[in-house]
Order: sequence, then C-alpha cells, then structure tokens
Amino acid sequence: MKNLSFNSILIIGVGLIGSSLARAIKEYKLANNICGLDTSKENLKKCYELNILSKGYDTLDKFTEQFDLIIICSPLSTYKEVFSSLNTYITQNTLVTDVGSTKMSVIKDFNEVVTNDLLHFLPSHPIAGLEKSGPEFGFTKLFKDRFCIITPMKANTESVDSIKQFWTAIGMRIQTMEAEHHDKILAMTSHIPQLIAYSIVSTATELETHLKDEVIKYSAAGFRDFTRLAGSDPIMWRDVYSKNKEAVLEMLGLFTKDLSILKKAILNEDLDFLENTFKSTRQIRNIIEELGQAGTFDPTESEKSK
Amino acid sequence: MKNLSFNSILIIGVGLIGSSLARAIKEYKLANNICGLDTSKENLKKCYELNILSKGYDTLDKFTEQFDLIIICSPLSTYKEVFSSLNTYITQNTLVTDVGSTKMSVIKDFNEVVTNDLLHFLPSHPIAGLEKSGPEFGFTKLFKDRFCIITPMKANTESVDSIKQFWTAIGMRIQTMEAEHHDKILAMTSHIPQLIAYSIVSTATELETHLKDEVIKYSAAGFRDFTRLAGSDPIMWRDVYSKNKEAVLEMLGLFTKDLSILKKAILNEDLDFLENTFKSTRQIRNIIEELGQAGTFDPTESEKSK
Repeated sequence: MKNLSFNSILIIGVGLIGSSLARAIKEYKLANNICGLDTSKENLKKCYELNILSKGYDTLDKFTEQFDLIIICSPLSTYKEVFSSLNTYITQNTLVTDVGSTKMSVIKDFNEVVTNDLLHFLPSHPIAGLEKSGPEFGFTKLFKDRFCIITPMKANTESVDSIKQFWTAIGMRIQTMEAEHHDKILAMTSHIPQLIAYSIVSTATELETHLKDEVIKYSAAGFRDFTRLAGSDPIMWRDVYSKNKEAVLEMLGLFTKDLSILKKAILNEDLDFLENTFKSTRQIRNIIEELGQAGTFDPTESEKSK
Repeated sequence: MKNLSFNSILIIGVGLIGSSLARAIKEYKLANNICGLDTSKENLKKCYELNILSKGYDTLDKFTEQFDLIIICSPLSTYKEVFSSLNTYITQNTLVTDVGSTKMSVIKDFNEVVTNDLLHFLPSHPIAGLEKSGPEFGFTKLFKDRFCIITPMKANTESVDSIKQFWTAIGMRIQTMEAEHHDKILAMTSHIPQLIAYSIVSTATELETHLKDEVIKYSAAGFRDFTRLAGSDPIMWRDVYSKNKEAVLEMLGLFTKDLSILKKAILNEDLDFLENTFKSTRQIRNIIEELGQAGTFDPTESEKSK
C-alpha cells in the first residue's frame, strides 16, 4: 500500500462524501494535489475554509491539468453530464470511479456517453454516509471498516487493482459483485428502509397539529429510529428511486405483501401467527449482532472508536 | 421526595422492566422490602443472583404480607388474571400501577374484574425499554429522564400524587393524558414503527438464502436500524397488537396510503413530488434534534451518561 500515490485527484461533488474523501486522501497522503469540482460555490468555500482542497472550481474547463484519478460524488442525476464533460476533457490515461448508490444506471450512463478510451471507469459504492449533507459534516473515518462494493464492467485488471488499493488505503473492505446483484441487495438493505422511513415520517407530518406535536415529543418510543434516516439528503434519494426503480418496486412489493399479512393477523387477532413472526425476526437481529454489524446507531461511531 | 418510602413493594413480572424497577427501588431506597412475583422460576432465580429482590414467588398465595405498592410488569394478556388475583388477595389500602404499553385495554380489564375498594389503580406507561428481554438486561438508569405517561381513571388525588412521586423518584418526567389519546399517540410513535420493523425484517427472512445472507452482511446501509426494534420481546408485542388493535389499524391505514402514494411517484418518476416529500420529512427530523430527543440510538445511552 505504501507505493500508492497519485499526483492529482479530482473529486466531483464536495458534499458530505466528497469532502470526507478529500480529508481521507489528505490524511493518508494519497495524492500531491486534491482538486474539487462543485456547482455549489458555497461547498467550495467551506472546503477552502476546512483546508482540504488544493484547488476548487465550479466548472471543469477552469482546470488546466489532467488527473490520475477522478471520483464522482455528485447526485446520480448528474452522471450523464459528468461523463460527457470528462469524455471531452480527458487527454491522458485516467482512472475514474464513483460513490453512487445504484450501479446499473451508472453503467448505462457511462455506456451511452463515453467514447474516450483513456477514461478507465470502475463503478464503486462505498457503503458509508450519514443523514447530514454538506462538507462541514464530513470526516476522515467515515469509510473506516465499511464495505466498498465494486462492480467491474470488464476485466481491466490494472484499473481494478488501483481502485481497490485506493479504497483499502482509506480503510474500506472491498467486495466485488455484478451491478444487477448490487442494486437488488441495496434496494432491500438501504432503499426500502429509507423509503419506509420517509413514508412514516410523512404520515406523522400529516397528522393534526396537536397529535403531531406529541408524536414528536414521544418519538423516543421507536419512531425516532425512522426519523434518523428521514433526515437524509432529498436530492440524493430522489435520484436513487429514479435510478433503481425496478429493484425498489420489486422489494417494495414483497414488503407491502408481508405488511398486509401482518395487518390481517391483527384484524383477526391471530396471536399465534404474530408471536411466531416476531420470534423469527428476532433471530435475524441476533445474527446481525453476532456478526458485529449491530452498531450503536451513532453515525459518528467510527470517528469515536478511533 | 425525601418522605417517599414504602414498606413493601410487589413487582409482578420481573423481566427487563420489572427487574430494572427493582434495581431502581433498591438504589434509591424507596422501600424496605422489594418482592417479586413471576411465573418463570428462571427469572426469579436470576433476580436472586442479582440480589435485587427481598423475596420472590411464582404464585401470589405464597406471600403472607400485604403491600403498599404493587407494579404490574407482566404481559398485557395476563392483566385480567392479575387483577382477579389481586382483587381477592388485597385486604388493606394498596396502590396499584402498571407499565403496560396500552392503556384503554388495561382500564377495561380493571373495570371488568376489580370490585375491591382497597385496590387503588392508576394506569401508567413509563416509556422506557430496550430490545432485550429478561432480568439480566435490566439496569437502574433505564427510566432516567424518560417520559412516564399516566392516565388517571378518576380524581383520586392522593393515589395519583403518590404514584407520580414514585416515578419521579426513579428519574422520570410525568405527563398526564386520557387513555384513548395515549393509545393513539403510542400507535404512531411506537406500535406502527415496531410493526413495520417486524414486517421488513420478515420480508428479508423470506428472501432466497444467498440474497438473505448479503442483506444481513450489508445491513449497516439502513436495514440495521429496523432490526434493532425487531429484536424486541415477541410476547409483549403480540399483546400490544391485540390490545391496541383499533388505533394501530387506523394509523397503519394512514401509513399504507402514504407508502402507496410514494410507490406511484416512483413508478411515474415524479421526481418533484419525491424531492418535496423528502424535504418535508427532513424538517421533522430537525425539530426532533432541536428538542434534544434525537439520541444516539444506543439503548444504554442513559446508563452511559451517568
């Protein structure tokens, strides 16, 4: 790992994830220059104040140099435009990766736009984040001991190895899988829980004021766990549901079927069925605890365990 | 508060909540004798080993003394039988309260069974607990700074004051409301989130083995937040859905309607609608954070903040 170093890395989108990457690259000394591209001048300003970027612009054409590694951290809806501008800009061999929550859509966007053979793209998904957005909330250890799923498109061994080394260098555990499989798993572990969280908090929002105030007051009774997710970045999540539509709708279908079965059991007071269902779900929790994945539900837990 | 002390307190059901109460009563020196009644000899044995009970039996008739305060901590399905045995047993003025998650059903059970004027019952719901069950998981500070909702049936000022003082003495913040209102709020803040957590974990359980293993592996992506709740006591929750059926079904109806609206927006790729919904839910999270109710999602947080 000691040999890994880049001359210049460009981070496209310096929000929570992008700025955390900049911090990690700086701390682990993985590049001589860390450049940032963001349409938000506010984000760039905050990064300068945090002293985590060598250079930052709001359009790609303001840069004069080429980059060894480019990491796309902007919303999924921007990818096509990002690929298009990189397709024109890149004039030397360049590794490109991303942090997007869906992988099929990213590959589709790449294939539709990129014709430049110098652009070597390996789709990545570092599973790390929190319900805040903006560079001010980023931190170096966000990636520590988290999984990073990569979904290589073709066997370009050299690029894959370099990207793997990069994620490993900032503390991540690499897993390789097909993009379609990734999207299905993430639909279940991330996109559906998130949608449900949005939905139930939305339900609470519509209650009459008196009741709503008390729901907020007594949120520690369980509701609170859902509000954490519902505090996440609206643009990022809007894009996820647009880009992973099929897998999300498939898993949502399974969930609503199961929920309606539970609803019927409550209606019919089928206590045995309820008890047996609740016992089986408890086993899943136990497995997660045994695997050491249970966590403390504190989004900054990695930071604290330093 | 210094004057509050009971000669003998009986705790019916010495699981997680009951044993935590015994610990708190002992630590704050609120009674000379702390007695436990539990049909599980295993639970009683554990309490003896933990040295938190003066005396413990598996049936009420094995006790010879009367009690100043009796706290019902057994599952909601046992209340009728518990009230019935207390109705016969009590021969002196006795304060009785409980910790049940529903209040309408508890009052109904009381009214149907109790004829003994010496039994002064004030329904309580200390909103505290965690996803573990059994006396070995209890701890004194479980109640610290949590809300305790009381739903008095009639204006028996003296009983109400004593019970209030008791909950305050172990660190709780008292709120008074109608039983029906309590059940509706708790349906939304606790019973529905819990049901959804059970449902989504149940959906994951039904996936083919390969996919299920990976859902567990990548549970930190959001799914994990739901499994915490799904680790809770199956009997307790089975009873909640039976006893708070109407309010749960009403709130569940609101939730499924909202979820199907979101589903349609995904299907139609109505990105504006999704973005606006996600923005409004974020506001609710912000309010919860401002109220200092956000927490760290660590069930032992009170314990640690000692």
